[in-house]
Parts: sequence; C-alpha cells; structure tokens
Amino acid sequence: MNILFTCAGRRNYLIDYFRSALGEDGGRILAVDASHTSPAIQEADKAFLLPYVNDPSYLPKLLNLCEQEEINAIISLNDLELPLLAGHKKEFAQAGTAVLVSDPEVIDICFDKWKTDRFFSRLGIRSPATWLTLEEAKTAVAEGRLSFPVVVKPRWGTASIGIEFPEDMRELELAYELVRHKLMRTFLADVSSTDEQHAVMIQQYLPGKEYGLDVVNDLHGNYQATVVKQKLAMRAGETDKAVVVDNPSLVAIGEKIGRELKHIVNLDCDFFEHQGACYGLEMNPRFGGGYPFSHVAGLDLPAAIVSWLHARPAADDVFSVRFDTVSAKCDRLVYVDAAEKSLVYEPERK
Amino acid sequence: MNILFTCAGRRNYLIDYFRSALGEDGGRILAVDASHTSPAIQEADKAFLLPYVNDPSYLPKLLNLCEQEEINAIISLNDLELPLLAGHKKEFAQAGTAVLVSDPEVIDICFDKWKTDRFFSRLGIRSPATWLTLEEAKTAVAEGRLSFPVVVKPRWGTASIGIEFPEDMRELELAYELVRHKLMRTFLADVSSTDEQHAVMIQQYLPGKEYGLDVVNDLHGNYQATVVKQKLAMRAGETDKAVVVDNPSLVAIGEKIGRELKHIVNLDCDFFEHQGACYGLEMNPRFGGGYPFSHVAGLDLPAAIVSWLHARPAADDVFSVRFDTVSAKCDRLVYVDAAEKSLVYEPERK
Repeated sequence: MNILFTCAGRRNYLIDYFRSALGEDGGRILAVDASHTSPAIQEADKAFLLPYVNDPSYLPKLLNLCEQEEINAIISLNDLELPLLAGHKKEFAQAGTAVLVSDPEVIDICFDKWKTDRFFSRLGIRSPATWLTLEEAKTAVAEGRLSFPVVVKPRWGTASIGIEFPEDMRELELAYELVRHKLMRTFLADVSSTDEQHAVMIQQYLPGKEYGLDVVNDLHGNYQATVVKQKLAMRAGETDKAVVVDNPSLVAIGEKIGRELKHIVNLDCDFFEHQGACYGLEMNPRFGGGYPFSHVAGLDLPAAIVSWLHARPAADDVFSVRFDTVSAKCDRLVYVDAAEKSLVYEPERK
Repeated sequence: MNILFTCAGRRNYLIDYFRSALGEDGGRILAVDASHTSPAIQEADKAFLLPYVNDPSYLPKLLNLCEQEEINAIISLNDLELPLLAGHKKEFAQAGTAVLVSDPEVIDICFDKWKTDRFFSRLGIRSPATWLTLEEAKTAVAEGRLSFPVVVKPRWGTASIGIEFPEDMRELELAYELVRHKLMRTFLADVSSTDEQHAVMIQQYLPGKEYGLDVVNDLHGNYQATVVKQKLAMRAGETDKAVVVDNPSLVAIGEKIGRELKHIVNLDCDFFEHQGACYGLEMNPRFGGGYPFSHVAGLDLPAAIVSWLHARPAADDVFSVRFDTVSAKCDRLVYVDAAEKSLVYEPERK
C-alpha cells in the first residue's frame, strides 16, 4: 500500500499518522511538492519535486509518477489542486490510483463561500447574513439589518487571505475596496474573475465560541462520524489550540452535511455558536489544519482510510474520541537535506 | 541554575535548547504565561500562570515568584513585556535574578521603527526611504522619489500587524487610512498615541533577498558574534524556512550594530539585499522566531548564556555555524494537561 501526499508542504504530522496506519500491512508514504525545502519532503519515505499545480506538465507528470511508484491513493492538501484532481479521477483510477478527493460539484460548493451559504440555507442550517455588494450592505446598515462589526472576506479564498473586521462605516468602505483591489491581482484573480462584481463578501459578525468539525465519510461518500472541536486560538489562518467537545447539536449538523454533500473522506467545517444557536461559516473538502486536534483525541481517519483501501471495514474504535482533550501546536525544526535538490521528477521513458 | 521564560507561549524549542545547555551543571527550566494552554507551559520543568503583562499585579507577582523559585535569569519573549522588565532590573537583581533584557533606551530604538531608521542612518547603514505622513509620501511619488510598490506598516508594531504592500496610489490611500484606523483601536494604540499623527510608516519597497541576523552580545552588552540567515519563507510574521549563509558584509554590519547598541544577549535583525547593497529594516531586542535556524546550524547561545551566568567564558565553538544549513519549521501537537489549570500563581505569605 503506497500513499502519496501532493502539495505536501508542512503537514508532517499527517505523514506520521498515515505511517502508523500502514502499520503491519506495510507500505510507503510518498510526498510531492514544488519546493525541495518542504518539511514533508524531508520526512516521507520517498519524495519528488513536481512543477507548480498550474503548470501544464503537472498533471501528466503526477499521473506518470503514480504508475511508476504504484501509488494506491492520493491525498491532496492544496485548495487550488483539488478541482484539478477531482476532474481527472478516471485517468488515475486506470493507473490503479484512488484519488481521495471529492467530486467537482462538492469542491465548487466549498470553494465558493456564497454557494456554501446557499447550501447551508437549503439544509436549514443557520449562517450569518451575507451581502455581495458594498451598496447592498450599506443599505442593510441604514435599515438596521446589519450592524458593526462586520466581516469582509474574499468569496473564493484560502487560508484567510484578506479577511477584515471593520467596526464602522468608513472602515467598511476602506476594507471592502482594499480587499477587492488586492484580490484582483492575487493568484485567486483567475477564479474571482468569473464574477468579479461579486467577489467580496460582507457578513454580519456575531460573537461566540468558534468550532471546527471533522465530518468523515468513507471512500464512496457514505457518512461515518463527526468530531467537534472548540477553537481556542488561531494562527496563520489555521487552528492553533483546540479542545474536543461533546456537542450533539453540531454532530447532528455534521451528519446532515455529510449525508447531503456526499464528500469523500474528510470535510473540515467552521461553525460558531451565538446565543445558543449554531451558524455555519465555511467548508473545506480535505484534511484541515484542525485535524490533528481530533487525531490526538482518538479519531484515526488514516487507519480507517487504509482499511477501506484494503476493502476492509474500519475498526470499531477509529471514530471514538476522548472529550475535553486539549492540545496546542508548536514549532519543530526539520533539517533540509541539500541533496533533495536532485529529486526533480522526470518521467521514465517507456 | 534556574532559568525562567516569561510570556513563554509556543517557543518550546527554546526550552529544549536551554535544558540541553544546563546539561551537567543541572538546573530547571521554568515558564510563566497568562494561558494554561500555552505549549511551553506544558513542557517546562515547572510552570505558573500569571496575569497579563499589563495587569498591575503582574510585576510584583513575577518578582515574588523569582525569589520563591530562586530564579537565576529571566528571558522574555514578548515585545510588550520588554520595556517593563527593562525598567525594573535592579529590583530583580536584588532578588538574585538577572533580567536578560536590554536597557530601556535600546528597546525604545528597536520598538520605534522610525528611531531604528535614524539609528541605521547614524551608523551609515542603508535603509529604505521612509515617510511618516501620507501627504509627504504622495509628494514623493509625484516628484519621482518614491515608486510603487511601497510598504505601509505601523511605526510601533509586532509580528507584522497590519503590514500592506500597495501597488498604486489608490491602494496606498486605502491601505494607509485602514492601517491607521485599525491601529488606533488595537493594543498598540497606547504606544502610538504618543505621536498619533506619525504612527504609520510608508517605505519604498525594494525587491531582493531577505535576511535575518542574530547579533549576539554577552550579558554586559559586549559584542560576540553575528549569524546571518537568508529567509526562504515567512509564516504568521515569523521566519518559516531559512538557510544560514556566509555573508561577510552582513556580519560586519551586525558587529557595527552590536558594538554601538550594546544590547543584552540576542538582537534579531531584518535586512535585505537590493542590487548588491544591504538595507536594514527592523531590530528586535530578544530571541526572534528565526533563532532556531541559527541554532540547528551550530550557534549555541543558550550554552553561552549558561556559561556567562556561571561567570565562565563561553566555550570556543558556541558561535561557530555550518554554512548552507537549510531548515524548515513544521507543527507538532502538545497535549495540554487540564490539571495545569491549578497553576495560577499566588505568592506565599511571608
């Protein structure tokens, strides 16, 4: 069993978790990244450098690599890569590689936060009141339907790029125009340009406890479990401290989402609780930066995935967690072997 | 030998480095923080919770704790705490505790980026052209003395709060006003209000390689060594990937700064190279987020500090580094013991 992480970056804990999951059955963890200094590249059993995801040669090289290294499953950790892999699952399947990525429609609902909002609404899940133009938001303020502070963020976004929390009208105007201005020239511009008049969202900010959910489906999109974490601190757009909590309301919401969305494997969701009600914010159809907090509390999704890939049912205990488990991230240093520079992947000639 | 980290936060690698440095001589690493979920609190030999630094009871409690736990030296990792400790070294000295923090004038030069700029100028060190008002900057653009992109950042700042990189005049206006607006209501407002008309800096952006310097002085401010790292990636305002380089020009600049500033122990400096010339950006009079990259390459400042505290010279090899050492940070999870909640420090009655 060979498992490949693409855009592997700095999620070294996932390499450790999957290596443990392979356990007695044996197998290798491979990693690819565009940078030879990626920490995950250093600690995988075998690693390769590939071009950036938006390079035309990326996909054919990845496909070739999967055949050559007999990769059984791919896990992607990059929002910009998910749609690409989602659209080419069949080619990988023909090479014997399962792409553990949701279908394109699911990724579209998650990546477009306005569609996420509509999805929540359709399922009867609360979400903060949202506007897509500054004029509409200003009218809402004037009519008392929107009050400060508010949230200004890109409709298509990743890792909290450009999120602002204006506390008065002038700051809203400045933040809206600045986010829009910056968005138009970032790497998200390609996506946003599909509807650039509605590329920035203005949302009601509601104070309350923040939660991260791991909503787990199996390889075929069948719902399995939901683990709820209260976020205690954020850093660089990721959960930095969290506690796993017993919250039946959010578990029920997670189940509703998982059964309706039919995503593949993991869905990372952001919720918050305001005056006793739960509100949905975002969904990421992949392992999120908050997954390790569930893992150290007992969730073992890597073990479940390895079982499923072996066409076995997951063990009974892999979805059980110890409530009130608190943990926090800190940094460790990974030495980068300069010899890794030779790892640029070139397909073998057949 | 007991060493205490205040505002210890998530710098667990420093705890490890100092524990190794204590080595055969023995001793304990203690940590205090305002939060029981701080990762450093979990891994110190002994830990206490104290109020926030701006709480009036913070300093007397810390002083009491140092006496009670027989602390030999304090290392602070928080920019907002440095001026407080710098102003009360004598009281701690009377309790037998060396505060390894620079003098108030040094901290003032570092914390006020405009004074840093003047300091560089006085030493003949280049720095990017800088303006303190939007009007002056706009005039400079009109007269061709400033060109886009530019940098907009708080004059008194920490961890890159509110830094913007406008690429045209409209974006400069928006960014300047927004940064100023936000600054006035953040925790930095107290400091900035000393000169709130000049609280935001506009700097010429110059492309080039970025460097971090560890400029090392001894406990009395005598220059010892400079280690230069080229930054390869940033995250959450900290160096995330770096390579230690052989750069005699920057070592010479580090020596000039260390001898003139006479800071205590470590000074973390940001420089960049543009068209063959070195430009100074910022100085932080403490262990910076880039220190571990020097450490894994061979710099052992903790060992030097422990020697100096024992009134011994530092070993010959503690300032030697292996050039071209590349390393990268990644996350690890620290389990937070709920029992730590009982660690709130209450001074014993005498």
